[in-house]
Formats: sequence, structure tokens, C-alpha cells
Amino acid sequence: MTARPANAHQARLLRLLRDDGPHSRAQLGDRVDLSRSKLAVEVDRLLETGLIVADGLAASRGGRRSHNIRLAPALRFLGVDIGATSVDVAVTNAELEILGHVNQPLDVRDGPVAVFEQVLAMTGKLRATGVAPDGFDGAGVGVPGPVRFPEGVPVAPPIMPGWDGFPVREVLSQELGCPVMVDNDVNLMAMGEQHAGVANSVQDFLCVKIGTGIGCGIVAGGEVHRGTTGSAGDIGHIRVEPDGRPCACGNRGCLEAYFSGSALARDAEAVARDGSSAELAARLETAGRLTGADVAAAAAAGDGVALDLIREGGERTGQVIAGLVSFFNPGLVVIGGGVTGLGHTLLAAIRTQVYRQSLPLATGNLPIVLGELGAVAGVIGAARLISDHLFSPA
Amino acid sequence: MTARPANAHQARLLRLLRDDGPHSRAQLGDRVDLSRSKLAVEVDRLLETGLIVADGLAASRGGRRSHNIRLAPALRFLGVDIGATSVDVAVTNAELEILGHVNQPLDVRDGPVAVFEQVLAMTGKLRATGVAPDGFDGAGVGVPGPVRFPEGVPVAPPIMPGWDGFPVREVLSQELGCPVMVDNDVNLMAMGEQHAGVANSVQDFLCVKIGTGIGCGIVAGGEVHRGTTGSAGDIGHIRVEPDGRPCACGNRGCLEAYFSGSALARDAEAVARDGSSAELAARLETAGRLTGADVAAAAAAGDGVALDLIREGGERTGQVIAGLVSFFNPGLVVIGGGVTGLGHTLLAAIRTQVYRQSLPLATGNLPIVLGELGAVAGVIGAARLISDHLFSPA
Repeated sequence: MTARPANAHQARLLRLLRDDGPHSRAQLGDRVDLSRSKLAVEVDRLLETGLIVADGLAASRGGRRSHNIRLAPALRFLGVDIGATSVDVAVTNAELEILGHVNQPLDVRDGPVAVFEQVLAMTGKLRATGVAPDGFDGAGVGVPGPVRFPEGVPVAPPIMPGWDGFPVREVLSQELGCPVMVDNDVNLMAMGEQHAGVANSVQDFLCVKIGTGIGCGIVAGGEVHRGTTGSAGDIGHIRVEPDGRPCACGNRGCLEAYFSGSALARDAEAVARDGSSAELAARLETAGRLTGADVAAAAAAGDGVALDLIREGGERTGQVIAGLVSFFNPGLVVIGGGVTGLGHTLLAAIRTQVYRQSLPLATGNLPIVLGELGAVAGVIGAARLISDHLFSPA
Repeated sequence: MTARPANAHQARLLRLLRDDGPHSRAQLGDRVDLSRSKLAVEVDRLLETGLIVADGLAASRGGRRSHNIRLAPALRFLGVDIGATSVDVAVTNAELEILGHVNQPLDVRDGPVAVFEQVLAMTGKLRATGVAPDGFDGAGVGVPGPVRFPEGVPVAPPIMPGWDGFPVREVLSQELGCPVMVDNDVNLMAMGEQHAGVANSVQDFLCVKIGTGIGCGIVAGGEVHRGTTGSAGDIGHIRVEPDGRPCACGNRGCLEAYFSGSALARDAEAVARDGSSAELAARLETAGRLTGADVAAAAAAGDGVALDLIREGGERTGQVIAGLVSFFNPGLVVIGGGVTGLGHTLLAAIRTQVYRQSLPLATGNLPIVLGELGAVAGVIGAARLISDHLFSPA
């Protein structure tokens, strides 16, 4: 197991090297508020732990050239992003650069035992390529439901039968022989976009993930807000229509009753069957079922009904985001998840609602953009999660 | 001007003495993570600044009895809570206990010059009672609109014509001869309830203030979340009804188009005039106009129409809060502001909506309660705001 920093100064140095790469000692001195002698002590102690190394010559600043300080190149993190219908597994170095990545379909309803069997097999496949010769220093895991964060245990996850209370953190930690942290998949997407994507350097932002369901990662003051029971961001069941459509949750008029990956597939099959979209009918005929990707393809082929489905979904989603923008006053809204294949039609519909309904003061300088990292946002966020944990004082 | 703490340890000690009162040196040692010698150094330095004093004997812990350490008893903070139609001004000691308090009606639309003339006259009246013989060490000010927090300047406040960009912090700081911090009135109410009221020791909570308008203070991880432009919590214009009633903001179906102190007065006058409430008609006849207090009195007298107005308003408000609870997953929701005179009828309607609509995981252990501090929540929050500032490293 990897050593941990002994104090907050060391933790800060490790995160700085993670986020901004190698620094000379002089450059580190410019970045942290420590005396020269204190900085030298902390760097020397970190060198002793093996978490950092002195490696290569730094650019000259006039005097004797010093070695660059960087995170140990042998450090390896595992990022696992479990979705409702697929899973991503990736290996990163300590700077959270992806060294290997695999994606496979998966049904989260098969339960944790089957899912982790598959995840461990994928991990083994990645290791067989030589990306993590010494195993892992830590692993981050995302699941598509609320998590009791300190314990790393899913709690009452609606689309994950069999997972309630399963000790994900403990079990995986034993299997992998390294520390593990578990979080909601949407929070990991937010952390990924914050680390390496479009939200880099934004302090307050929302990251709305539209996949099988709809969730929202909330970052306040640079930190993920998880809420009192780990269910913060669960926006799929906010009501968009009084006495509206019945929802699987037992209420009426919820956002997810109108829009999400699965609602879109259902509505697409309906318009295919009732004859209002020839394009979608042809695709249903061929494939036997429809997904969001079919709707995107039909819309790209000029099918007006498919375009309407996307637009209406975007409007419903935008209606909810408009309220959240008034409430939270974020500096950025990121839209991600599988349904982002619907692209700019969806984005335009969301923007229209938010800019129309939210207060001008909250939307004046508010960008609403698609995520930059696509399918790897979650695994980068997972690596960030575990590195935040390991790069904290023990 | 008061001295400021030199470092984070001193700041922590000052806040601890503010929040929990006098401590012996041994008790302080139990509370902070400092070596005995380091603690002694920081306490001695604080004694030199005059911010704290050694005063009276602490309870014996077996050895020689030591003096209690407490905040300087002469420290005085001014708290000013400007509402749309009234203002509260109070003087507190360093432990934020109220030593004097006055309330007067006021019209915020008279603009900052007239309002601050009145506030300074009220302050003079308080000082004439001898509560602040040496003037103030700092002042906190709340205004009923968004504030650019670092500068202490109201920004585009919808119900405050003439205030946009007025340098409240700078002007008052010159008038009072002490540091001033300015914030939105709802944030101050939240900080007041956090310091001395029902939200004491809660890390994540929402404080919904229903007065002339409706706003929400957001506390995340113990800190007020103000948002990117200072407009966080502006929930009065979240849409509750698609294509609903026109709102003063130019949109349709906003919460405030249905409920707030002013919407309630308007609706009460309507049912008084159309003859559906004899009780309210009689009150309108006598007073020439109606307020929320009349509706409360009519409801208390058993008037069914008045009760319905309160219930419907609570349902609309509850509908919005339900969405915020799903999104933010708070540990507590506090309802405050002038309309809390409507009491438990309002609270019951809000609770019904939230418990029905929000996710069970978010509402399982969620108390929804009335604020404990009433009219002084804002001024205590204002004193807390300025003390947080002064008890931070300079």
C-alpha cells in the first residue's frame, strides 16, 4: 500500500504535482505559502516516502539547475465507472492520464457479485497489457445510484436491485489489495470534467448526466456536494408537470417520466409503431428495439418526429435546470452522458428554457455546454476521487 | 479598528470562544489540535492584541486553577437587517448576544441614502442607551436582494430601485468608522439560525424566507453558498405552473406569482372584495388594505377562505422546496420570514408536498421546521457575518 502524506502541506504538494505536472523546487516555492527551508523539509520527506521522485533537470532560473520534482511514475490508479447498461474500466498514472481503457456492455441489475466478476476480468485484461505491472495504489468506483460516501456502500439505489447495502468498498479493496473509494457515477463525471475537461478551474458548477436516468453532479466551492444521505443531485424525479404522466417511482409528472435514455427509447418505439415516423419504424423493424442512438440517427437523417422528441426532452430537462440555476447560481452547466449523442438539438432546447426562465443575473455569463471527456469522464473522476483520498493526510 | 488574528490557529480560537463561550486553557487544549506550548504562544499573542482577556477563575481540573479565557467584553458588533418594508438594527457583544435591538417600518424603495440616514439614526438611538460606549468593532448589513459579496455592493436588486451598484460597504464603513460586510438578507437569516437557532450544528441546510418575496439561504458544509454572481437562493421565480399566472418579472407561472407576502395580500383583498370571505371583507373595510397578518388572523378566527389561501400558498412553496430537497439533499429545512405568522397551517402544507414529492432517501430523516429566532435571526446573522470576517487571518 502506498504511503500517505503526513500533513496538509505535503497533501497540497502532491495534488499540485498531480494537477499541474512536474515542477522544479523553485517553482513549487512560488506555488505554496511555505518558507524555503520548510518546503525543502516537506519535499525531502515526500521523496523518502517514494510518492515523489526527483527526475530530469528543470529549466534554468539563473542559478544552478535543479531536478524536476514529479509524482512517482510507477503509481497506478484504477478507475471503474459502472453504468446501468455498460461499464468503463481504466488505468491511470498519478497525473490521472489514461494508460489503458476498456468498455463493455453490462446489466447492473445482475447484482454486485456478477458485476464485480466482470470488472475484475476487465481489470485483469488491462493488466495483461503491462500497464500496471505492480498492481494498483488505489481504485475509484462509480455506481449509478446514491452512495453512503464515508462507508462506500450503495443505499436504496432504485435501478440497482441487489446492491442496497453491499459493501463495495470493502469487497473491492480486498480483491484488489489497495484502498478503494466509491461514489455516485454522476459525481465522478463532474470530478472528471473538473480535472481534465470543460469545468477545469470552475468553482461552482452543475454536471447533468442524461443516460438511462438523469442525475446531476453538484460542485460547490470546488468540492462535490453529496448531501446529507448521499442523494444530492437526484433530479430525475423533480416534478415538471402537475398531475402529469405516471413515473416508475410512484409519483406523477417527474422529469424521468418524460425524458431520459429509457423514456426516449420508449417514446421512439411508440412513434415507430403508430406510423408517425417512417424512419424510426424502419429502424425498429431492423433492430427489434430502439435506443437514444436510433433517435439521434433518425434526427440526423432529417426525421421531424425524432427531432421533436429530442426537442421536447430538452425542453423538459431545461425546465428543471432553469430552476436549479436560479437556486444554485452556478458558473457553468455541463451536459453529459449517453444522450449527448443527441448533440446540439438537445443543447439548444435546454439553453432556450434556461435562458428564458432563469433570472438574468444568474444566466448573464452562464455557459451551458456539452462535456468534453465523453465516455472517460467517469473513470478520470474515479481516479481523481481515490487520488484525493490518498493525497490527504492519513 | 480591532486587531485581526495573525494565523488560522488564532482565528479558530476566536471563533470557538465566540460560539461556545469562555474556556480554561486546559479546555481550549482539548478543543484544538495544537501542542501545549504552541497553544500557549497563540493564546498569549491573542491576549496581547486585546481580542481576548483572562477573566475569572475556571473550574478546577485537579491542578492549580487557571483563569478563564474569553473574548474581550468590550467588543461590539452592529447588525443591520434591511427588509423590503422594515429594518432591524441591533448591537451584540463578541459572543453575538443581543444587547439592544430596535425595529422600524421602512420602504427600501426610498433608496440607499434615505435608508441609511434612518439606519444611522436608529444606531444613534441604540448608542444613546450606553450599549456601545466605544462605538463598533464591525458591522454586518443585510439587504433584500443579490449582493456582489466581495465588494459588498447590491447588484440588479429587483425590489430595490436606486440600489444597483451602491457601495454599501464602503459608505457605511466610513460612516461607522469600522469594517462592514454586506450580504443578502436571506443568507443572514440562515447564518443567524445556524449560530443561535434551530440549525445549530447542521452542516447542510436550506433556510426559506417568506416575506414580501421568497428567498432561500443555502448552507453547504457549514458555509453559506452565494453562487457565482451572488444570486444563489433566488427561488421566487422558479416556475410552478407551465403557462401560469403572469409574474412581475415578465415570466409566467413563477412561485411569487402565486405566493409571498405581497401575493397573499393581493389575493386576500380579492376574496374580500368578491364577497367570498366576510371576515377579510370586514378587515379590509376597517384597515383599507390587507396584509399577511390579516390572513393569519382571519384563519385563526376560523375563516375557511383565509385558511385555503394559506394552504394553497404552502402547497406551491412546498412544490418548489420538494425539488430543492431532491437536488440538494439537506439535513434540515427552516421556514422563516414575516409569513411564518401563518404558522402550522403553512408548515403542514409545505411538509405534505415535500414528503409526497421528494425522494424517500432525501426525506427519511428530514425535519422541516419554523425558524427559532424570529425577527432577530437576521441581525444575529449580520453580527456573525462581520465576526467571521474579523476572526479570520488578516
